[in-house]
Amino acid sequence: MLCCGLVPVTAAASREPVDLVYPYLDSANSRWFFFSSAARPFGMVSLFPDTDIEGEWGSGYRYHSKQIKGFNHIHEWQLAGLSVMPLSSTQKLEQLKTDYYSDFSHNGERVQPGFHQLKLDRYQIEVALTATSRVGFHQYTYAANQPQQVLFQLGGVMGPSRLGHAHANLQGDDAVVGYITNQGTERRTKPVKVYFYARFNQKVKQLDAWRGNMLFHNVSGVDGDDAGVVVTLTGSSQPTLLKVGISYVSVDNARLNADTELPHWDFAKVQQEARQEWNNALSRIAISGGTEQQQRRFYTDLWHSLQGRRAVSDVNGQYTDLSGTEAVIRQLPLDAAGKPKFNHHNSDSFWGAQWTIATLWPLAYPQIAADMGNSLLQYAKDGGFIPRGPSGGQDTLVMTGAPTTPFLVSNYQKGLYKNQQYFDIQAAYQAMKHNHSIEGVMARAGYEHYSSTGGGMQYYLQQGYIPYPLPETESNYGSHRRGSGQTLEYAFQDHALAQLATALGKVEDAKLYSKRAQNYRNQFDSQTGYMRPRTIDGSWQTPFDPHEYENGFVEANPAQATWFVPHDIKGLAELMGGKDKLITRLDQDFKTAQKQGFTSGTAHAQETHEEYRRSPINYGNQPSMQTAFIFSAAGAPWLTQYWSRQIVDTVYSHLSPDRGYNGDEDQGLMGSLSVLMKIGLFQLSGGVEADPVYQLGSPLFDEVRIQLDPAFYPGKEFKIKTLNNGKNRPYISEIRLNGKTLQRSFLYHSEIINGGELVLKMSDQPNKNRTQ
Amino acid sequence: MLCCGLVPVTAAASREPVDLVYPYLDSANSRWFFFSSAARPFGMVSLFPDTDIEGEWGSGYRYHSKQIKGFNHIHEWQLAGLSVMPLSSTQKLEQLKTDYYSDFSHNGERVQPGFHQLKLDRYQIEVALTATSRVGFHQYTYAANQPQQVLFQLGGVMGPSRLGHAHANLQGDDAVVGYITNQGTERRTKPVKVYFYARFNQKVKQLDAWRGNMLFHNVSGVDGDDAGVVVTLTGSSQPTLLKVGISYVSVDNARLNADTELPHWDFAKVQQEARQEWNNALSRIAISGGTEQQQRRFYTDLWHSLQGRRAVSDVNGQYTDLSGTEAVIRQLPLDAAGKPKFNHHNSDSFWGAQWTIATLWPLAYPQIAADMGNSLLQYAKDGGFIPRGPSGGQDTLVMTGAPTTPFLVSNYQKGLYKNQQYFDIQAAYQAMKHNHSIEGVMARAGYEHYSSTGGGMQYYLQQGYIPYPLPETESNYGSHRRGSGQTLEYAFQDHALAQLATALGKVEDAKLYSKRAQNYRNQFDSQTGYMRPRTIDGSWQTPFDPHEYENGFVEANPAQATWFVPHDIKGLAELMGGKDKLITRLDQDFKTAQKQGFTSGTAHAQETHEEYRRSPINYGNQPSMQTAFIFSAAGAPWLTQYWSRQIVDTVYSHLSPDRGYNGDEDQGLMGSLSVLMKIGLFQLSGGVEADPVYQLGSPLFDEVRIQLDPAFYPGKEFKIKTLNNGKNRPYISEIRLNGKTLQRSFLYHSEIINGGELVLKMSDQPNKNRTQ
Repeated sequence: MLCCGLVPVTAAASREPVDLVYPYLDSANSRWFFFSSAARPFGMVSLFPDTDIEGEWGSGYRYHSKQIKGFNHIHEWQLAGLSVMPLSSTQKLEQLKTDYYSDFSHNGERVQPGFHQLKLDRYQIEVALTATSRVGFHQYTYAANQPQQVLFQLGGVMGPSRLGHAHANLQGDDAVVGYITNQGTERRTKPVKVYFYARFNQKVKQLDAWRGNMLFHNVSGVDGDDAGVVVTLTGSSQPTLLKVGISYVSVDNARLNADTELPHWDFAKVQQEARQEWNNALSRIAISGGTEQQQRRFYTDLWHSLQGRRAVSDVNGQYTDLSGTEAVIRQLPLDAAGKPKFNHHNSDSFWGAQWTIATLWPLAYPQIAADMGNSLLQYAKDGGFIPRGPSGGQDTLVMTGAPTTPFLVSNYQKGLYKNQQYFDIQAAYQAMKHNHSIEGVMARAGYEHYSSTGGGMQYYLQQGYIPYPLPETESNYGSHRRGSGQTLEYAFQDHALAQLATALGKVEDAKLYSKRAQNYRNQFDSQTGYMRPRTIDGSWQTPFDPHEYENGFVEANPAQATWFVPHDIKGLAELMGGKDKLITRLDQDFKTAQKQGFTSGTAHAQETHEEYRRSPINYGNQPSMQTAFIFSAAGAPWLTQYWSRQIVDTVYSHLSPDRGYNGDEDQGLMGSLSVLMKIGLFQLSGGVEADPVYQLGSPLFDEVRIQLDPAFYPGKEFKIKTLNNGKNRPYISEIRLNGKTLQRSFLYHSEIINGGELVLKMSDQPNKNRTQ
Repeated sequence: MLCCGLVPVTAAASREPVDLVYPYLDSANSRWFFFSSAARPFGMVSLFPDTDIEGEWGSGYRYHSKQIKGFNHIHEWQLAGLSVMPLSSTQKLEQLKTDYYSDFSHNGERVQPGFHQLKLDRYQIEVALTATSRVGFHQYTYAANQPQQVLFQLGGVMGPSRLGHAHANLQGDDAVVGYITNQGTERRTKPVKVYFYARFNQKVKQLDAWRGNMLFHNVSGVDGDDAGVVVTLTGSSQPTLLKVGISYVSVDNARLNADTELPHWDFAKVQQEARQEWNNALSRIAISGGTEQQQRRFYTDLWHSLQGRRAVSDVNGQYTDLSGTEAVIRQLPLDAAGKPKFNHHNSDSFWGAQWTIATLWPLAYPQIAADMGNSLLQYAKDGGFIPRGPSGGQDTLVMTGAPTTPFLVSNYQKGLYKNQQYFDIQAAYQAMKHNHSIEGVMARAGYEHYSSTGGGMQYYLQQGYIPYPLPETESNYGSHRRGSGQTLEYAFQDHALAQLATALGKVEDAKLYSKRAQNYRNQFDSQTGYMRPRTIDGSWQTPFDPHEYENGFVEANPAQATWFVPHDIKGLAELMGGKDKLITRLDQDFKTAQKQGFTSGTAHAQETHEEYRRSPINYGNQPSMQTAFIFSAAGAPWLTQYWSRQIVDTVYSHLSPDRGYNGDEDQGLMGSLSVLMKIGLFQLSGGVEADPVYQLGSPLFDEVRIQLDPAFYPGKEFKIKTLNNGKNRPYISEIRLNGKTLQRSFLYHSEIINGGELVLKMSDQPNKNRTQ
């Protein structure tokens, strides 16, 4: 479905990848950080209009909301930034400070990667937005003979948290500088300041301000809680330009960011550069074939895979470390030219990332994957451990386990740190070991900031599984305390760590973690055939409902979670009575799940729906992401081909504000998953083994060309060609790699990075002769 | 009246000054920082039980309140510290966190300078408190076989402000460390953190915590808004001791303060040392004669003169500068032994201090006066100007004008900076000039943080007076925007600055400020005979009610304010038609005011009472403090003697929790005033002239011996002896200084500091022959 006010498109062939992105996708269901427009890949700023500002969920830019409530510069995991709003108002400040939202419509609105344009109906102001990495760039065209004003909202609830103490003051006659404070939340407990340097291309005539109910007219600035500022400009018949440099460190750095990245006032130039940067990134994977909608959805997915996890360090490499009780300004290492060797990042959890960004990034964006690893190690240097999901310089401890382990091990196995002097694999290994210990993040449940019991690590180490429930007296706080699911997760992560131990020649460690990686077996009940909660005395949960959501498993039901043994399908098959039984059963699960479209409803909010959540498979969240590729590992790659194509067609094919990911995209996870399934490459065990394998799926397009980064890989391009592809032709009848027929349905990493061509003959009939 | 649970007193003669202090005085009317018990002179900690915790006013220890709500370590201008509460509770945390207050009674309670003891009835816990300068020392005697717990309240409203983000965690097995944040207020706009290091003499068994509605059992700590902690101790049959080091800089400094000042666990030793330190300070002025109640009230006043304006720097001289947008840790200069040369201080305003601490401190406590001056200069070095009332490292801009000028000039004229290498009088002079400029604090009204208009300085400079009201468009924010009163105040402060200019040989400046010092004349309306508000066009306010409170004057009515020309009584007399007319009129004002006891009610809360506030004189607040001594300067010293004795007997003679200062004591101001009037020395113009004079009043006692500080003054002691003194004998018939008869009713500073003896023959009849 094409809809909703985009500029009419010409034939896809004549357009570049960036033109194919449909930013409205799923935006009727946005959470705070989901949508994006005026932003750069992994930049600090993600500037766009907010229609809803209260809460982590149901906020940000929501397609069907009617009002714009401000333009916020940061939409990140647990963080908001500065919200500004252009106005033309003659209202008194007393009223204005709570009554300034404007209606808008999608008529005439333009949204592209790096750009957003719309009209504020109430004020008849045309707004255009673009951005550099750390600077939001605004263009306001005020109606003739109207007051030219901009409101800076420094207080109230802004996305994930309430704003606390703020400061703003005039600097010179054309700039407003200051900071806002994101108050602590349950997740990100410590306050985070975001500094800004907002400079106009015309002079400020007057600054009025408020704090709570107090009003201040014609003052130099304001500070305090629940404060705000209205700047009245002298007025100009030319469009007003506003550049807003952002920093987590200081006003000076916010200004430095602005002066460095945006030393001029040429809006069109920045708009074009933003477009070009996105296009370059998206062009790393070229496609041909498929329908226009499939192509557009593909590049929208790829664009989403590069969203979130934004920079927190400044152009000079300074960043704020909040791992201790006080904010400390630190410095990233600089290269010979004095530039930071990498950027430091916020990040939502890597939970499930082994099947998404941890495969896609090293493949198409190895620099991003490597940098993110450096950033995680920087956190470990500062805070003593690799975080689960750092926000504003502190770990939020989001979700469970040590999900960064597979990501880092995968990076290492793919050779990303070969030429990186900064990334010390020995130090990283020690940090991962710590994470997997009774003192590490594995010992903590979700958001368990003040104790180390909710992770159930003591039981995992002593009994080989984590009881569900844990004794209340031992563990009374932390989210996602679902011991059975934690056992499965830890076992997989231990497998990943064992692979690194092997690679580093740490034989004893490798044995230890390999043994722990088998702990999933302790969770399998052969009588019911499910992974099943066990109580502390070792007995199975009774009565047991395998379709009860979160019954011992994290954001999953036992039926879904039963498939979570990505590193040992052979072992799982044994437990289930053989590969054939496993295959038959999984096939049946897919057939059952198909009845409700493979997801628990069409949005994350429906995942806990009484009925929907009983599905044996849910492609709307991380726990089921790997299921279609289990067939391949179990000897039935044709079923992987069939079901993965079914999933793509059913779950990841829409192009509408109302439906997109049918669940929670998180930060690039579902986007990456969709991309991987559509190019037909997947890594069931997250690519953590030496020269890791990619299971082949069922590519959607006639041709996929992955540009290999010459800084990391010897090959130039890896091409995947499909012959006789089509809607009902998901099966691969023949595989040729660089001209040679392959008898296996998987590739090695080394085969891809050397460059080459994979040719797949597609068919409407399965080829059951190829069982691996 | 003696009352209220003090240990029965023996004859005053057998007791030391510290035993005579009655800390309950006026405590039924306490504001947050008024009461004191476990504290040292100008120490950082002022630890005492809080019966009321919400607000700046009506809070702290209030005599008639029935419940203890915690023991807070800081009670300062706009600041609270850590509040702790010992408990023995079996309640669940969910209830306990809001239901832990305990009833108490004054039976068995003991309150002394440096010590407080009471029983928490609800828990049957005996609590004893004492303190070093920066450490609160607690002793809890729990009932047998009861849980031994301590609650740390980190959130909610605490005195002047709401508490914001806080942190607490276990350190080792016997300490809890962290911080609370005083959120910004209208007055102190930026948040101020107070760090603590709380160590027990027994082990912590368990720490439970909450944040908002979330509960955390058996955790390592907590952080966030509205948080708190309950520590359960292992339990001991011995009294539990708790020392709480405080710092505005860091947890490490809080610990350093504790380890340095209190390296042992001997409670009785610290109690005794605190007692001794207070006794030493109080003994600087020895008295004999008078009734026991007069003596007790006198030392209570003297004790109050040493309250407030507490240290903000640590034992190592570090302090937090909050003059900019960010907190910056700075270092005070150290002496050869590595000790700070002085302490840095909080301070309520010096508004009116020219008649109180600015006279008393240089006389009896020159080191304190000198140090406070150094601290003010330190603020100017950091923030660019001498503050009016710094709190937690930032100026609150409390009240109006530049009231630190007379204080600093008085210090200088009294020679306090002769041997002080640190205090650079030239730099101080430049800072004072800046304060008196259109860019300085004089240009700002009370709490006018964001503009420089409410001070009316542009009008003062151009028109020689400040209009009332100021045009709303020019000045729309700031308290105390009472132009007429500001004119009078600035004129006096300009006089003070002119004296310093003269002393420093700055002839042109001296002329300029002397001329400005005459601006009070522009406020005098010869038709009505009052200082009278003038509008911006120069016309007099019409209709005009000279008894309408705050009608153009700050915390005063025009009738009271008319007497505010402390530096030029001769000029005022001319305006009034001669000295005789002035005297007659002022005498009549006293007679009128006498009908309601010389104050506007018996507490600050009554000052705005419709009827009371119409009094021509109000000895319950700063604006009238000087009035009794105007007679002396106008040629009728006998009326000064008469009325000052009347004031003392009527306003400053009570010894009860219900009546004390009949208004707002502020921070040592009313206490100092009372002391000065009772020893019979006063400085009408604040001692700002070269070798400044002290007007003689009517000493209450047979003998007053002021110990002169050998580090500053050549003499050892200045003795004031009265002969034939008595209740109806306020008049001085004869004055002999060092055996020689004096024909004047005033002394020079040089006469006092050289030491000597003043003998006053008292009489029931005025000696009208001595007219100066």
